[in-house]
Amino acid sequence: MTEDIQTFPVSSALVKSIETMANRLRRHSLTSTSEAGSGHPSSCFSCAEIFSTLFFRFLRFDVNDPHSLQNDRFVLSKGHAAPILWAAWAEAGAFPVERLGTLRRIDSELEGHPTPRSPLVDVATGSLGQGLSVAVGMALAARQNQTGNRIYALMGDGEIAEGSIWEAAALASHYGLDNLVALVDVNGFGQSQATMYGHEMEGYRARFSAFGWHAQVIDGHRVEEVIASLEAALAVRKQPAVILAQTLKGKGVSFMEDRDGWHGKPVGKGAELEKALEEIGGDLELEVPLRLAAPKGGPAPKNGRPKTVVVPPPEYSAKDSVASRRAYGTALRKLGTVDPSVVVLDGDTKNSTYSNEFMEAFPDRFVECFIAEQNMVGTAVGFATMGKTPFASTFACFLTRAYDQIRMAAVSQVNLNLCGSHAGVSIGQDGPSQMGLEDLAMMRAIQGSTVLYPSDGVSAERMVALAASSPGITYIRTSRPKTPILYPADEEFQIGGSKVLKSSTDDQATIVAAGVTLHEALAAYELLKKGGVQVRVIDLYSIKPLDVKTLQKAARETGCLVTVEDHYPEGGLGDAVLSALAGRPARFRKLAVEGLPRSGAPEELLDLFGISAARIAEAVRALL
Amino acid sequence: MTEDIQTFPVSSALVKSIETMANRLRRHSLTSTSEAGSGHPSSCFSCAEIFSTLFFRFLRFDVNDPHSLQNDRFVLSKGHAAPILWAAWAEAGAFPVERLGTLRRIDSELEGHPTPRSPLVDVATGSLGQGLSVAVGMALAARQNQTGNRIYALMGDGEIAEGSIWEAAALASHYGLDNLVALVDVNGFGQSQATMYGHEMEGYRARFSAFGWHAQVIDGHRVEEVIASLEAALAVRKQPAVILAQTLKGKGVSFMEDRDGWHGKPVGKGAELEKALEEIGGDLELEVPLRLAAPKGGPAPKNGRPKTVVVPPPEYSAKDSVASRRAYGTALRKLGTVDPSVVVLDGDTKNSTYSNEFMEAFPDRFVECFIAEQNMVGTAVGFATMGKTPFASTFACFLTRAYDQIRMAAVSQVNLNLCGSHAGVSIGQDGPSQMGLEDLAMMRAIQGSTVLYPSDGVSAERMVALAASSPGITYIRTSRPKTPILYPADEEFQIGGSKVLKSSTDDQATIVAAGVTLHEALAAYELLKKGGVQVRVIDLYSIKPLDVKTLQKAARETGCLVTVEDHYPEGGLGDAVLSALAGRPARFRKLAVEGLPRSGAPEELLDLFGISAARIAEAVRALL
Repeated sequence: MTEDIQTFPVSSALVKSIETMANRLRRHSLTSTSEAGSGHPSSCFSCAEIFSTLFFRFLRFDVNDPHSLQNDRFVLSKGHAAPILWAAWAEAGAFPVERLGTLRRIDSELEGHPTPRSPLVDVATGSLGQGLSVAVGMALAARQNQTGNRIYALMGDGEIAEGSIWEAAALASHYGLDNLVALVDVNGFGQSQATMYGHEMEGYRARFSAFGWHAQVIDGHRVEEVIASLEAALAVRKQPAVILAQTLKGKGVSFMEDRDGWHGKPVGKGAELEKALEEIGGDLELEVPLRLAAPKGGPAPKNGRPKTVVVPPPEYSAKDSVASRRAYGTALRKLGTVDPSVVVLDGDTKNSTYSNEFMEAFPDRFVECFIAEQNMVGTAVGFATMGKTPFASTFACFLTRAYDQIRMAAVSQVNLNLCGSHAGVSIGQDGPSQMGLEDLAMMRAIQGSTVLYPSDGVSAERMVALAASSPGITYIRTSRPKTPILYPADEEFQIGGSKVLKSSTDDQATIVAAGVTLHEALAAYELLKKGGVQVRVIDLYSIKPLDVKTLQKAARETGCLVTVEDHYPEGGLGDAVLSALAGRPARFRKLAVEGLPRSGAPEELLDLFGISAARIAEAVRALL
Repeated sequence: MTEDIQTFPVSSALVKSIETMANRLRRHSLTSTSEAGSGHPSSCFSCAEIFSTLFFRFLRFDVNDPHSLQNDRFVLSKGHAAPILWAAWAEAGAFPVERLGTLRRIDSELEGHPTPRSPLVDVATGSLGQGLSVAVGMALAARQNQTGNRIYALMGDGEIAEGSIWEAAALASHYGLDNLVALVDVNGFGQSQATMYGHEMEGYRARFSAFGWHAQVIDGHRVEEVIASLEAALAVRKQPAVILAQTLKGKGVSFMEDRDGWHGKPVGKGAELEKALEEIGGDLELEVPLRLAAPKGGPAPKNGRPKTVVVPPPEYSAKDSVASRRAYGTALRKLGTVDPSVVVLDGDTKNSTYSNEFMEAFPDRFVECFIAEQNMVGTAVGFATMGKTPFASTFACFLTRAYDQIRMAAVSQVNLNLCGSHAGVSIGQDGPSQMGLEDLAMMRAIQGSTVLYPSDGVSAERMVALAASSPGITYIRTSRPKTPILYPADEEFQIGGSKVLKSSTDDQATIVAAGVTLHEALAAYELLKKGGVQVRVIDLYSIKPLDVKTLQKAARETGCLVTVEDHYPEGGLGDAVLSALAGRPARFRKLAVEGLPRSGAPEELLDLFGISAARIAEAVRALL
């Protein structure tokens, strides 16, 4: 256990210095928020001793190499306490303390809530209740890496009400993550009033204990207790540890301390600020110098992403029929053989998404996340921050459960790959609760995202390989029904591309589709051809970014476009195409799932909701 | 306590009949899924005794008046057990048992997962982990109604991993909901493998106990134990009760019982089905006739929605400046005075969304949901199913947390009103984690939704009144900054409308905007006018449905459109406008938040991200 802490003994001088450091951090938090004119000083004051103790007695971190996989990780789940995070890094020597005066300015990396604009931040926080999931992913990655580093996450008590915390708590305990230490700053107040539990510390202990955690209750303002509890937490084996720290919001400033109404309010400059500074104390010299401990070092992990990855090609014959979801699983397995950084997560749907193909080949790199999609995505983000290439899958409709985590992953600028299976009404009898019909809209609106929608086994396999090396959030939409192979194994695809599958100089209209509706479009092509109408058919496999050129060319040459998607009419493929046309003239019709879907056979539903071959042909004829 | 159960004693003959009924329900579940060729019989078999006991000894329900507020409520959170739900209702006399043969057909209300296409279903389930939140809302509504009825929710053990369950569990206990009884069918299996906890019943008990619930562990296949535990649960006061029933998945059919690999699989017709039917037993005559108990009756609640609601008008002067979020609170308070059905929920942001104005006026109709947005929305849905008019609010960005609940609310066809405050980069210094930039895309893609985006205090107040009487999911987007009053108090607004604020016969372009960007558009109008360019300005306060006519007219008359929104470029106001133009010719430019936002002053951010007055004027000039 001694290996985990700095070697000098806990002298009273050291304790005093850590206490003094806490007040230094308070002072920085106070002045930087007053200067900014906004921010959350009271939420910083309650965790000042936690910060000073954790950073200057336990954390092993090289500020000159913040992304080193040997570093411990610290996740500030209560992201509104950003001012004290910046203060702690400044005091740790990461940057000059003067820079704290730039807090919240448009040209500063010291944002109002932590973002990776600062290299000291792995993951953006500020949407509460997400940090523990990220820490779980980091802890799983560190275990794979065998680097022996620790993952710390600091939560507020208000955010404990978020269910995602309990999803993460359950998984951390299930996988026995003893390299994970959570701390909860129980100051008793949320934003608008007291929390549900105030200072009922034993209630918190009971909850974490029941979820399989080693739980300690301490006075979060007594440095000795913070030290002793962290030492005890690091000694725990085969289960995660949580330290429940009873604290006071606004601690250290009489007119803020333990008072409601001070959430997210800076102290006004002038007399009020003077009084607060006086109470925190002016002479904040350290008796013992404090510094961050260095990482343990040791060999770097060998399971990072190789420089070149060549994925084995698809192996279908032209006569095969395969569901794109099945090809997703096959592709993951192939990718796993050539890229050791790939990890796969699923939410108890692996036999439907076919991520189980990867699990069977690489059980150590597969994480069953059970029915808890928020935590699955948060855990995947944690993996991504540790140099892994995560793919997380569930039914497309259930990814809506994790939309906030996906949104925050984009702010975190991580490389995260998501797969939503069972898109649209074509899943059939299970009915609307299981149909992904909003997912394209949801994923297109994610900042910097890539949205891919394969229509056959070959393109599905190629999309998986493309996703692995694509930065940011990449979404792959797969379908339940089997569909014929459309492409030869060596066909090339690219992000932002499309395929013109049918084209002639006589085209009177263009049908743009992807997924199951592309096959309906091809059938509509035959129907129309029989009636003497020639149409162009485009496979829009990259919904974002978009092949604007090909779409504009089709509009120009055929003068008439019909889009078809197994998705609601808003925000999906049709809207994407309109965005590419942007006011250019063309007769246009968007076919999408209008009305509330229901149970039924897939082919019946495609027809009922207006996206079958017959309905497409009808729409084309009506436009001519 | 005796008032809660049927008056005849628990004879062994009754127990035997309830046992026989369980097997009848198994038989129906088996045959209906085999006939349909899909479905989840094994998940029905594990809860057959729970169903037969609950329905035929405890539930008070009038099948001829299923929506009566005096009825008990039953929520099947494990929605994939729909076949046994339909079977129980059929045996209870709600419809002929022969109808069970239509399961999952395109013309049947007996869908693959429960939906309100059947009048016996209050809320759609099938996205796991949501039923308890709905039940919490129902229990709170029943308490308000003082109807003395009970709310029962049946969950699976797999879905206990969903955080939303623990959000609901915490809130139910916080509000001491002793009219709520939850049952968990602990059959030990999820979809793809064993659950995290299998049959560790004491672990489940510890978790629910720690969350403040009265918890019992029983053998879920022993009818006596189910009866005794339900009687004990109904006797509990001031806390919710949960019954943790240890069961076997596939119970009653040897080749399915307690075996993995039988999730969501019907038994094939022929020999396999014959064998299963034989094992369940052929002679299923009841010794004692079983029926549903009648509701207690008593006076109907008086706090329903009145037939006509006239909301007091806005009271601003033309010189006022008010944030639309503030007007939202004012409007809620006014609405509350004339409509007793209105209930307001918030997720610890009430002093930011200003829903606290309602709370101060009507504390009994306000529910603080703490920082748990999924449960807040689920609870609001529960209120809606009980004839209430719920308004739930938080920051727009945090509604992403509840997207799955919102999606399911649409499938449930309830009248649910949501308000997302702090839209866009105009919130300023708090940074991207707090900015709603995907919310328009997310809410537009909800089936049948209404999306409103007020730009001043008057329109914000009017939108609240419109939302209250609008069916389906209505979303109101409010902004943080104060903006000038644009409209007189008697201005009329309508869903699907818009306002042309600037118009002349010389208009060379049209600017379409809403919210803070409308004020930027008006400033751009002045800038352009000074340069001799006349533009039309449209307030697109109804983003869905859309005033297609006015937009098409503007395109035709001015030939040039610029849309401006404090939202990401995909799926928002600009895409909505393009959808209205649908291939009609117009020079077009969509201004939206491109790139990843950051902390900064609101006006700096509007300019940096290209949606300020200056940038709008620039875009217009470039198009001319």
